[in-house]
Amino acid sequence: MIKVNVDRLLTDLRELARIGATADGGVSRQALTAADIEARRWYQARIAEAGLEYVMDGAGNQSAILPSDPPSEKRILAGSHLDSVPNGGRYDGALGVLVALEALRALRDHGISPPVTLEAVNLTDEESAIMGLMGSKAVASQLTATDFERSRVDAAELDRRFSAIGITRETMLGAARDDVLAWVELHIEQGTRLENAGIDIGVVNAIVGIRSVHVTFRGEAAHAGTMPMDRRRDALWGAATFVLRAREHVMRHYSPGVCNVGIINAQPGAFNIVPAEVYCALEYRHGSDDEMDRMGADLYRLLDECASEHGLSVTYEETPPVIPATMSESVMRAIERGADTLGLSHERMLSFAGHDTQNMAKIAPAAMFFVPSVAGVSHNPNEFTRDADCVNGANLMLHTLLELMKEFA
Amino acid sequence: MIKVNVDRLLTDLRELARIGATADGGVSRQALTAADIEARRWYQARIAEAGLEYVMDGAGNQSAILPSDPPSEKRILAGSHLDSVPNGGRYDGALGVLVALEALRALRDHGISPPVTLEAVNLTDEESAIMGLMGSKAVASQLTATDFERSRVDAAELDRRFSAIGITRETMLGAARDDVLAWVELHIEQGTRLENAGIDIGVVNAIVGIRSVHVTFRGEAAHAGTMPMDRRRDALWGAATFVLRAREHVMRHYSPGVCNVGIINAQPGAFNIVPAEVYCALEYRHGSDDEMDRMGADLYRLLDECASEHGLSVTYEETPPVIPATMSESVMRAIERGADTLGLSHERMLSFAGHDTQNMAKIAPAAMFFVPSVAGVSHNPNEFTRDADCVNGANLMLHTLLELMKEFA
Repeated sequence: MIKVNVDRLLTDLRELARIGATADGGVSRQALTAADIEARRWYQARIAEAGLEYVMDGAGNQSAILPSDPPSEKRILAGSHLDSVPNGGRYDGALGVLVALEALRALRDHGISPPVTLEAVNLTDEESAIMGLMGSKAVASQLTATDFERSRVDAAELDRRFSAIGITRETMLGAARDDVLAWVELHIEQGTRLENAGIDIGVVNAIVGIRSVHVTFRGEAAHAGTMPMDRRRDALWGAATFVLRAREHVMRHYSPGVCNVGIINAQPGAFNIVPAEVYCALEYRHGSDDEMDRMGADLYRLLDECASEHGLSVTYEETPPVIPATMSESVMRAIERGADTLGLSHERMLSFAGHDTQNMAKIAPAAMFFVPSVAGVSHNPNEFTRDADCVNGANLMLHTLLELMKEFA
Repeated sequence: MIKVNVDRLLTDLRELARIGATADGGVSRQALTAADIEARRWYQARIAEAGLEYVMDGAGNQSAILPSDPPSEKRILAGSHLDSVPNGGRYDGALGVLVALEALRALRDHGISPPVTLEAVNLTDEESAIMGLMGSKAVASQLTATDFERSRVDAAELDRRFSAIGITRETMLGAARDDVLAWVELHIEQGTRLENAGIDIGVVNAIVGIRSVHVTFRGEAAHAGTMPMDRRRDALWGAATFVLRAREHVMRHYSPGVCNVGIINAQPGAFNIVPAEVYCALEYRHGSDDEMDRMGADLYRLLDECASEHGLSVTYEETPPVIPATMSESVMRAIERGADTLGLSHERMLSFAGHDTQNMAKIAPAAMFFVPSVAGVSHNPNEFTRDADCVNGANLMLHTLLELMKEFA
């Protein structure tokens, strides 16, 4: 049975981890900073070394290309991203690009000439140093000129970073593609479901939607000594009640859906003043948009209840949501057939984090699969995936491409 | 029966409210700023106009003096403070100084020559623009050179403000007094107990102690999507549980003692990160130091419980406490006899806010009494005490001084 070259893959993984390495074993390769640009050059050199074609599109996405014979317009794409969060881990994104490259090299080593052209892609700025999922947004026609204005870096820095790799806002906006037959991405799970269940591969059937809500409870400021407790309208009492009640309700009725209050603060904010106003940043995620609607309605009812029980008012304002992305049944089946061929156990599961695949799914049949993360640690220097799981992932990428070639050629 | 001059008192109150007046009807007269200095000049002018002697001590405390005949070394003092919080109310402190002055003027009007010298005092910086209760600390030998380093204004500004009224750090440290026979202060209640009970006067039997605690719950940061809710160690869950359980416990077992969490924040602080660390500023108050010990032990046990229930650790660090101050029985009885003479209803109660009287109690028999605050509003432009209650307070100050003269002469 055809397999990847384990040494070559693990050597790549070790070498790449040196680029932007941090003292505590992680990496900092924020998109289009010096470290990311060095990683991009390193990737281009690996592609050349492998005798594959290299192309960079107007969005800075880098592809290793294994051409079909006869030449085909349409392509099957696999990949992920080489950029990282500040002081992140070695596997998030990087492993997905390296297994795609290794799959193409293995095909070439075995003299397999694909019926459609294959690409192993490094997508630009997945991790939000600039705007997040930027390369896949551009490919999937999801990018507009106003997105640049909401960038996390200022306009001058944005243009400096683009110019450092020879792209512009205009080339970004022109990077949409219509030649993609299918997309597949490997990623580390960043959770503990696979590890807990002792399963090799998670086949993602949907990437959850995310709704983010600005919540403000309003009561009345008062002197924390002179105002008797039974006469207070303490905004924190409402917020604390909500935090606990939302936790209980979501765990009981919406699992595996999740919610989080990640930011909280009280105004005016002093030891001796009863909080007049408490702000909470609320987020909730689910794989089904209908369930998200119900979940939202429940959470908003809880907010109103908690406010009213403590004599408070409450306002909430949703930011533009991320809609759940359903994965392609045919690509999921290709992954599952590949796993069966390799004897890897697998299970369908949700992705609770956002990934470029949610954009690619807008223009082509797309799916992704997970390999286990030790203890679920991610966005952290201690992020770790065992070598054996990296190799399983690479072989599964190879066999998924073989299945997709049968299906889409 | 001897009474104060109502018109003169209410005219003073209206005139004083113009100094440092804010657009919404409040006053901003932070200690030794231009507005406070204008109020101090105005007070000095009222003293001169009344034909009373004027003295300012090394701490900037201003006294109107009605000398005894024959002259006495020992004095009975009454007063409060003219400074305010930023955008505070017209009554907090100001009313206490004005009724003391009016009591002395009324005695003089009625040709009463006191057996011991009387002073109506404006104490410097009660409201913490510099350090809080500064004038009374100085008088009561509670001030040390290191207190200046903990000032809320920088060293240069501190010295500028002192120099504006002709005092220095040295004169401050030399302002301790040993000639005080008794102290009495009128203040607005800043709470709702009198108003709710329909009682004219609150005779303060103790000023509560205050303990302030820095609390930090520590869990583990995690991705708010990928980490299942039942595996999270969310520091906010522990903090929210504590806020509600402390509220319940203190209301049930320590009323009228109170607690407050006035500051809260979560780290790292993002929509999509489970809080690793939550800081809470906890404060609790009670009139008895023994009860405060028990209350503290209970609250710390609750902190440990709430942390452990959510897989967290918790640390807590008390700042130097304010010890409860017990009021003098003989001064309280003088106030009560005065109230009985005037037909004013009265009840003993705790002061849940700190006042200069807690320092004066360290060097002399001291007590204070409250007049009602409408709706308990204070430190706010809407702070309000009815004219009738202001007049009741002034007459009671006059009759309390008459009682104290009998007792202490």
